Amino acid sequence: MAGRHFLFVPGPTNVPDRVLRAMVVPMEDHRSPKFPELTLPLFQDLKKIFKTTDGQVFLYPSSGTGAWEAAFTNTLSPGDKVLASRFGQFTHLWIDMAQRLGFEVQVLEEEWGTGVKPEKIEEILRADKSHQIKAVTACHNETATGVASDIGAVRKAIDAAGHPALLYVDTVSSLASLDFRQDEWGVDLAISGSQKGLMLPAGLSVLSASPKAIAASKKATSKRCYFDFEDMTKANATGYFPYTPPLPLLYGLREALKILSEEGLDNVIARHHRLAGGVRAAVKAWGLQPCAKEPKWYSDTVTAIVVPPGYNAVDVISTAYNRYNMSLGAGLSQVAGKVFRIGHLGDLNELMLLGAISGAEMAMADVGIPVELGSGVAAAQAHYRAANAAAKAEKAA
Amino acid sequence: MAGRHFLFVPGPTNVPDRVLRAMVVPMEDHRSPKFPELTLPLFQDLKKIFKTTDGQVFLYPSSGTGAWEAAFTNTLSPGDKVLASRFGQFTHLWIDMAQRLGFEVQVLEEEWGTGVKPEKIEEILRADKSHQIKAVTACHNETATGVASDIGAVRKAIDAAGHPALLYVDTVSSLASLDFRQDEWGVDLAISGSQKGLMLPAGLSVLSASPKAIAASKKATSKRCYFDFEDMTKANATGYFPYTPPLPLLYGLREALKILSEEGLDNVIARHHRLAGGVRAAVKAWGLQPCAKEPKWYSDTVTAIVVPPGYNAVDVISTAYNRYNMSLGAGLSQVAGKVFRIGHLGDLNELMLLGAISGAEMAMADVGIPVELGSGVAAAQAHYRAANAAAKAEKAA
Amino acid sequence: MAGRHFLFVPGPTNVPDRVLRAMVVPMEDHRSPKFPELTLPLFQDLKKIFKTTDGQVFLYPSSGTGAWEAAFTNTLSPGDKVLASRFGQFTHLWIDMAQRLGFEVQVLEEEWGTGVKPEKIEEILRADKSHQIKAVTACHNETATGVASDIGAVRKAIDAAGHPALLYVDTVSSLASLDFRQDEWGVDLAISGSQKGLMLPAGLSVLSASPKAIAASKKATSKRCYFDFEDMTKANATGYFPYTPPLPLLYGLREALKILSEEGLDNVIARHHRLAGGVRAAVKAWGLQPCAKEPKWYSDTVTAIVVPPGYNAVDVISTAYNRYNMSLGAGLSQVAGKVFRIGHLGDLNELMLLGAISGAEMAMADVGIPVELGSGVAAAQAHYRAANAAAKAEKAA
Amino acid sequence: MAGRHFLFVPGPTNVPDRVLRAMVVPMEDHRSPKFPELTLPLFQDLKKIFKTTDGQVFLYPSSGTGAWEAAFTNTLSPGDKVLASRFGQFTHLWIDMAQRLGFEVQVLEEEWGTGVKPEKIEEILRADKSHQIKAVTACHNETATGVASDIGAVRKAIDAAGHPALLYVDTVSSLASLDFRQDEWGVDLAISGSQKGLMLPAGLSVLSASPKAIAASKKATSKRCYFDFEDMTKANATGYFPYTPPLPLLYGLREALKILSEEGLDNVIARHHRLAGGVRAAVKAWGLQPCAKEPKWYSDTVTAIVVPPGYNAVDVISTAYNRYNMSLGAGLSQVAGKVFRIGHLGDLNELMLLGAISGAEMAMADVGIPVELGSGVAAAQAHYRAANAAAKAEKAA
Repeated sequence: MAGRHFLFVPGPTNVPDRVLRAMVVPMEDHRSPKFPELTLPLFQDLKKIFKTTDGQVFLYPSSGTGAWEAAFTNTLSPGDKVLASRFGQFTHLWIDMAQRLGFEVQVLEEEWGTGVKPEKIEEILRADKSHQIKAVTACHNETATGVASDIGAVRKAIDAAGHPALLYVDTVSSLASLDFRQDEWGVDLAISGSQKGLMLPAGLSVLSASPKAIAASKKATSKRCYFDFEDMTKANATGYFPYTPPLPLLYGLREALKILSEEGLDNVIARHHRLAGGVRAAVKAWGLQPCAKEPKWYSDTVTAIVVPPGYNAVDVISTAYNRYNMSLGAGLSQVAGKVFRIGHLGDLNELMLLGAISGAEMAMADVGIPVELGSGVAAAQAHYRAANAAAKAEKAA
Repeated sequence: MAGRHFLFVPGPTNVPDRVLRAMVVPMEDHRSPKFPELTLPLFQDLKKIFKTTDGQVFLYPSSGTGAWEAAFTNTLSPGDKVLASRFGQFTHLWIDMAQRLGFEVQVLEEEWGTGVKPEKIEEILRADKSHQIKAVTACHNETATGVASDIGAVRKAIDAAGHPALLYVDTVSSLASLDFRQDEWGVDLAISGSQKGLMLPAGLSVLSASPKAIAASKKATSKRCYFDFEDMTKANATGYFPYTPPLPLLYGLREALKILSEEGLDNVIARHHRLAGGVRAAVKAWGLQPCAKEPKWYSDTVTAIVVPPGYNAVDVISTAYNRYNMSLGAGLSQVAGKVFRIGHLGDLNELMLLGAISGAEMAMADVGIPVELGSGVAAAQAHYRAANAAAKAEKAA
Repeated sequence: MAGRHFLFVPGPTNVPDRVLRAMVVPMEDHRSPKFPELTLPLFQDLKKIFKTTDGQVFLYPSSGTGAWEAAFTNTLSPGDKVLASRFGQFTHLWIDMAQRLGFEVQVLEEEWGTGVKPEKIEEILRADKSHQIKAVTACHNETATGVASDIGAVRKAIDAAGHPALLYVDTVSSLASLDFRQDEWGVDLAISGSQKGLMLPAGLSVLSASPKAIAASKKATSKRCYFDFEDMTKANATGYFPYTPPLPLLYGLREALKILSEEGLDNVIARHHRLAGGVRAAVKAWGLQPCAKEPKWYSDTVTAIVVPPGYNAVDVISTAYNRYNMSLGAGLSQVAGKVFRIGHLGDLNELMLLGAISGAEMAMADVGIPVELGSGVAAAQAHYRAANAAAKAEKAA
Repeated sequence: MAGRHFLFVPGPTNVPDRVLRAMVVPMEDHRSPKFPELTLPLFQDLKKIFKTTDGQVFLYPSSGTGAWEAAFTNTLSPGDKVLASRFGQFTHLWIDMAQRLGFEVQVLEEEWGTGVKPEKIEEILRADKSHQIKAVTACHNETATGVASDIGAVRKAIDAAGHPALLYVDTVSSLASLDFRQDEWGVDLAISGSQKGLMLPAGLSVLSASPKAIAASKKATSKRCYFDFEDMTKANATGYFPYTPPLPLLYGLREALKILSEEGLDNVIARHHRLAGGVRAAVKAWGLQPCAKEPKWYSDTVTAIVVPPGYNAVDVISTAYNRYNMSLGAGLSQVAGKVFRIGHLGDLNELMLLGAISGAEMAMADVGIPVELGSGVAAAQAHYRAANAAAKAEKAA
């Protein structure tokens, strides 16, 4: 099909041309004396992205799933108890992983479309007098439903309960796009991947561990080797890796971090908020509802849109794909067929999103959903113009 | 600025990723025994793009302007008379070139927003009993005003006048996007460049000469060397060039021709017509006028849009550039400040154009032009959906 | 430093320009209906590289080390006994991994510079009447010492002992460069990575499992999730992955497999043999010895060269790097400082190797090792010319 | 064929990976407000490469041949007299061009293998009392024979004769590789291309004109348009071009100039001298002669090597190409079949050249020329090691 594909799944996201270009590298000896000039600053600059000064960053040749396994196996011992909330496909997968890796998971089932409930966590932790629970996991952004949770509040809940459990946070679809503050929020293990806010292809997972997490790893007896913290720590100290790292991704990461630094991390976060606002304005103009139940759950990186009863979201997605050269995210599990998702994270701007909104409009119209053509676009345009005006006024003041 | 730039000038056009990739080539000896395997098919495949079987294609390392110089200097002698119509900046430039190269140009001044008037040409040629006029030049698509002319009618006019003048046609912004038929329309010199419908960067000009033009080149005495047909003909015969050719562009051309062939040239042309229709529907919905005076002049590759009195099109363009990361074409010369242009040629699809239309809408609104947000988008969407439906109906029938 | 770096470590190897180019891809939805068109043939074509028809290929986003972990954890249960030979840094690492993952390893210590001794394995297996040993691991090519082992003989030894142990083979630095025959040799788990014979950057590991290995994975109770066979099998069946795969590497793999198929796998293997012969001729001409003790251990993908007593191989390597823009492999562990290694696998030809040999010559001369300049080159040239002549004679016959 | 092709023709030269990467750019509006940020520094930095402060640099989308046409047509009028020396294929071509463009050429025929004879030029200019001769052309480096001429001496000869003729110098295969000093040597028109010392693909010609040349262009009446100085001057003043420029080449030029600046222009020139010395040492060791008759004519960018009587250089070249994946330059015209050429300019280092020398050795041996294998390599190695030692000693002092 002619023209550029409109990629609006919530990851992998569009790789900027600068990053694509930066990855066209000849191979080199990853044990050369020069190699650390590339790698050492990567670890430093990633700490800024996690907003941590105390944390230690790990880079694994793996998908984000690998970083979750690294977080669990390095810090927990067989049979350890984990407290986890489930309210979407990805929160479900981490629970499944924890169980398969041999941990006992206490699951807090939450309604899909809502997120982490700190008050429930606090209550359970308070009741856990003997500190059987070693880990609390929270998903900063549930990609399946477009729900963001308040991680700072989870930390407060743990602290309020006076509980020593480590806090594990899935930042796969939030890092470098939603506001995330590892140190301030006391996140012990922040897990992410390369193919979302970091604007790279998949293949590199990123994990930042607090000193408390590192300390836990010295005692944890889960079997591990590929993802072992200690092997990495030893090799990384001088800028090397225990095995051959994926060079193009490291060079791409170098450029992606430069782009983020040029725009400014807080500006990047503000841009995601502004762009997301346009999408939500469009949804409202269409007379539809986001899967996220309340504004407090709204995610700035992905919006899951509920199609009206009697329609199948799968038809919207396949029409968009086949007729308009656009990829939308599908509903998964509980919400399969009920929602389609617009990913709005990474290297995006207003016109790209307006193109996507207009495509979603046409695809919905084509399958018979009664939306007025142009209505969503107009609402988003109004949002963007107002946001621009506000930004200008603020600058002037 | 974040996200992909929206490039909506009428050239250079977006280079497809496949082509970009194909140009990443190591250098090689352009006199190697293998080199013709690359080059010889290029000439053959370009003939299909010009719809010629008799023509001879030339590829110059130059911009399209160079191919115009090649056309003139290879086929005309100093002082030869040229009949040319002027109705935009590019028709103006070719006249200026012809004059500077030492030819006498009889200029037909036409209103900007209109195009070639075959009946006038016929009249003048009929009057030229002694055949002083050696060349008739016509611009298939005047990029400055968004005006397409009927080249077949020009040929008929020349024939009706029984005149032997050669027909030179500027296809810079029409080749591989508007319907062009060199053989059927008796075009003697068709001139184009790489950076428009051929979806390549600039740097390669393309010219197709009829046997009559080649015959003329044997007698023409204008001085020439770099652009000389004969040097090229001799070297090209075996797949070589008289000087070092730009390898990445040749490899890119290989891929671009493959893409055109996969979509099918006539489908490419139909796609340009469909996409242009959406832009025109948007203009109408905005309550504005295209620079092209009548539907018969409407170009399917670029639309120049007249801003209402009291507004400066330059403001629309700079707002679009600075605020929405989009490049629009400026008005040139007579229409400077009065029009902005949306290029809609090359590797484009519906959603890209809807993004651009929404951007133009916002930029116009921002500078105070009273357009209803979403109105142009809605009109274009309706056009695209109707076109899709029609195409489906036709397929089914 | 000017000019192309001479990369002669035994991996990562040079990525051919075609592959580099093929990896410049925009992101796409890895759950799109088209995605399997890319992925399904990859699995099929990789089976040809492993010379298996019954095997099942797994592709992990990880380094080769990850594939080893996958092999162990999917097929063994905690406490299972593994029989492994150690004769170099990489055989050592796999033993270390097996131990850390909770298996009991019976180590056969072999002299570095030699390889797997099938007769010892047979003896031990015969003695293991109760079939405590579940796994026999063998390294096809020990990268640290430049030693290739006879894997077919290992299979025969296991069969001769009538023992049901699975055979695990490290083919990291042998796949697609040394002759490897999974089915014929009864290899149950063949482990490899992308950055050697497959001519890709690191980041993708490749594993081929026999039906017997797959059967074992159904019963093995080692904890695993990221590397789990079953998750992969389910998703791969329709061309998908359980998590986001590294798209550029998959596209690069597509092109690399095409290149291998164009040259022909057996021709690729013969080329590696021919090129390695030149390096060995050079070593002999220098009056030096390879680390591999006897011709039967000589590796066709890497040669470790012992420097004379009183010299430090590290100096040769750093001189080559700093003065001649060439990366050589260092000696590791037992042979640190005693050998330098020339990797000769992947996308290489005679002149590249002659450049490398001349560089090694100069670097050795610079640090005072008494080698005659040009002597190694001349010996390698003679080898290559003779091999060429032989090939021609064979073709003519 | 496997492995990297050895490109040892004297242009196009190897494009460094950094430059290749820098050319992977999306298209953009070449009339945008940002565009001059790219272009204006290019002109400034190129002046440093020409070693001029007064000169004006022109960049044409064309091959180097186009820049020659630009030099002639912008500064000469029909019938003007040109004094030109001929001693190779490229000096021949410029004479042919001058004649075809309508100038009267007084040819100084020099023996091939020698170069410009300033004393003859001085004599002729002294005799030209009425200053009929308007232009003296000189080729800094005749690529066909590997002959460098003393351009400073030509200037002195012109001055000694008190003659006002402009000095035109072909620096196509010398710029950014041989020592060239436009201002000091009083060069009025220095002509070059992108695909040699500038390490880019072909497609961009580069010309630097002295104020005297610019003044001449105001009066010269040769017809010109595409290559017109004035159009370029007007547009370039603000960083634009009169027609669409080849964006990838401009971005590549940006990176190439950065590379040259990082190494330092004088270091680049010294490197070319050092590398050429190795090639000449090899030729001597083979018992052969360069085409250049005396050391003072030796070129540091290309060596033409005379094969012994009874052998055809074409066989050497085709053997190198077909058997060893290497491109050598062919003998042209008078020296066709008699010489093969090794280009040694651009992005090269010692090991690349040693690989090439070893390949030439094998190819010669294969066709029966009695050269001792390894002899040329050994001589070049000795040269490089001595040059290194000298450089080190100098640094230490």
